[in-house]
Amino acid sequence: MAMTNKLVFLMALVAATASSCSAWRPSIIRMPTAVEAAAEQLEQNVAAPVIHALRPLLGSGGLLGRRAGVPCDSWRLAVEAYNKRDWMTVPANCERYVGHYMLGGHYRRDSRVVVDEAIAYAESLKLAGNGKEVWVFDIDETSLSNLPYYATHGFGTKLYNATSFKEYVMEGSAPALPETKRLFDKLISLGIKPVFLTGRTEDQRSITVQNLRSQGYSGWDKLLLKPLGVKVTAIAYKSGERQKLQDAGYVIVGNIGDQWSDILGVPEGARTFKVPDPLYYIG
Amino acid sequence: MAMTNKLVFLMALVAATASSCSAWRPSIIRMPTAVEAAAEQLEQNVAAPVIHALRPLLGSGGLLGRRAGVPCDSWRLAVEAYNKRDWMTVPANCERYVGHYMLGGHYRRDSRVVVDEAIAYAESLKLAGNGKEVWVFDIDETSLSNLPYYATHGFGTKLYNATSFKEYVMEGSAPALPETKRLFDKLISLGIKPVFLTGRTEDQRSITVQNLRSQGYSGWDKLLLKPLGVKVTAIAYKSGERQKLQDAGYVIVGNIGDQWSDILGVPEGARTFKVPDPLYYIG
Repeated sequence: MAMTNKLVFLMALVAATASSCSAWRPSIIRMPTAVEAAAEQLEQNVAAPVIHALRPLLGSGGLLGRRAGVPCDSWRLAVEAYNKRDWMTVPANCERYVGHYMLGGHYRRDSRVVVDEAIAYAESLKLAGNGKEVWVFDIDETSLSNLPYYATHGFGTKLYNATSFKEYVMEGSAPALPETKRLFDKLISLGIKPVFLTGRTEDQRSITVQNLRSQGYSGWDKLLLKPLGVKVTAIAYKSGERQKLQDAGYVIVGNIGDQWSDILGVPEGARTFKVPDPLYYIG
Repeated sequence: MAMTNKLVFLMALVAATASSCSAWRPSIIRMPTAVEAAAEQLEQNVAAPVIHALRPLLGSGGLLGRRAGVPCDSWRLAVEAYNKRDWMTVPANCERYVGHYMLGGHYRRDSRVVVDEAIAYAESLKLAGNGKEVWVFDIDETSLSNLPYYATHGFGTKLYNATSFKEYVMEGSAPALPETKRLFDKLISLGIKPVFLTGRTEDQRSITVQNLRSQGYSGWDKLLLKPLGVKVTAIAYKSGERQKLQDAGYVIVGNIGDQWSDILGVPEGARTFKVPDPLYYIG
């Protein structure tokens, strides 16, 4: 039964793919086609009916254990689980994989599950409602997406270029990350005040405000940018700022970022959330 | 070109699948067939040539944004990145997904990348070589696999059953997790002493020693089991034991576990590693 279904599905996909090759041209913004949707569905489901033996008993990784380069999905998992640290670039063989991850539905789906969890947590809180309860938001790859830049710069496979990246930031055109935006709006409706805490520097304040506003963010309590010339690690800088918030009487009920350096370091906040980011690492 | 290759590959898979249906019977232990290998390869690669638009700009999750139940790969990522906490069971709709993950090559591949990273870290250390440098290993789902149990108990979708699980443990038949075993042996060759620190209790000492030995583990420095009747959280218990190690002059250069409660809590160890575990959560 399962086999029959799978065959029918595969053959339908082959047919669908063949009949729409002429439509395979990139465009700047469009919805996924039925073929893409089918390919993604296949990616998720095709191997599920396979009956596996308990291969770990053999101590064998199987026929596909080693491919050329690092296995990109395992590399991404290692990044997200903080096993992989201090990396400079996405492995060269993973450019296509990361591009597909970011631009397909996968990144969005992963982000949605994180935000669903964050909202469930926020809704479960017994709030004092004294205006001192805050939630810390990182900006880049958490609240705003720099994907338009990275999509034309090798999806993280090239070394960071401060000049061209800063030029992009100064355009003020980074789109909102819609799942984080959903959390942001929800928190405001619950009476929890958002505080932006970013590694962006003070000279980028006005373009950052403009970018956030143009993307629909409003009602934040503070926007903390890094003073020019501060030379400490991201962990040290951000924990220091969170400590100042606490010292000023704020209660950090939540903290969300795309980097582990956003959410590690005392005081972390009562609960932390990491949104995915396979594009770059900040220590 | 890419399209043509994809068509050829899909058609070859259809043909291969059709011609070997009669071979699709479960057996206890066997290597993956060519069809399984092809299906897994497909799962990894099929959607990669798709050209995506910058869909986050639209604020849309795409056609496949919501399926029945939680998206299982995103759920697993949220577990590994410590976004999902205090969960009791694997979502019911993810039983097949988790089974495929654990029994196919994916779990092994993810574990290999973690251990490769751990070995690279260990090899980079400048060791004092004074016999006081240790590496803490959790046991269940880190050093030994209880997959034979979970494979016949719903892959984590059923509530924990202490009685039947303990019966399984007392068989002493849990297989070694080969990637962790590779790390264990490597550390011994480097002069770093493994210390097992487990939530298993003292009454399980002799079967645990027997199980570890039968699976090829040897040369550990300590096996720390929990005294009967200790009622603290896993984080509190394990950090307390690590503190005792430090107080006794040991230097914990590394710490590996499948649960965040294995690797959180001061002192964590100089560097921590999390191996995958989508089967259960211990807080």
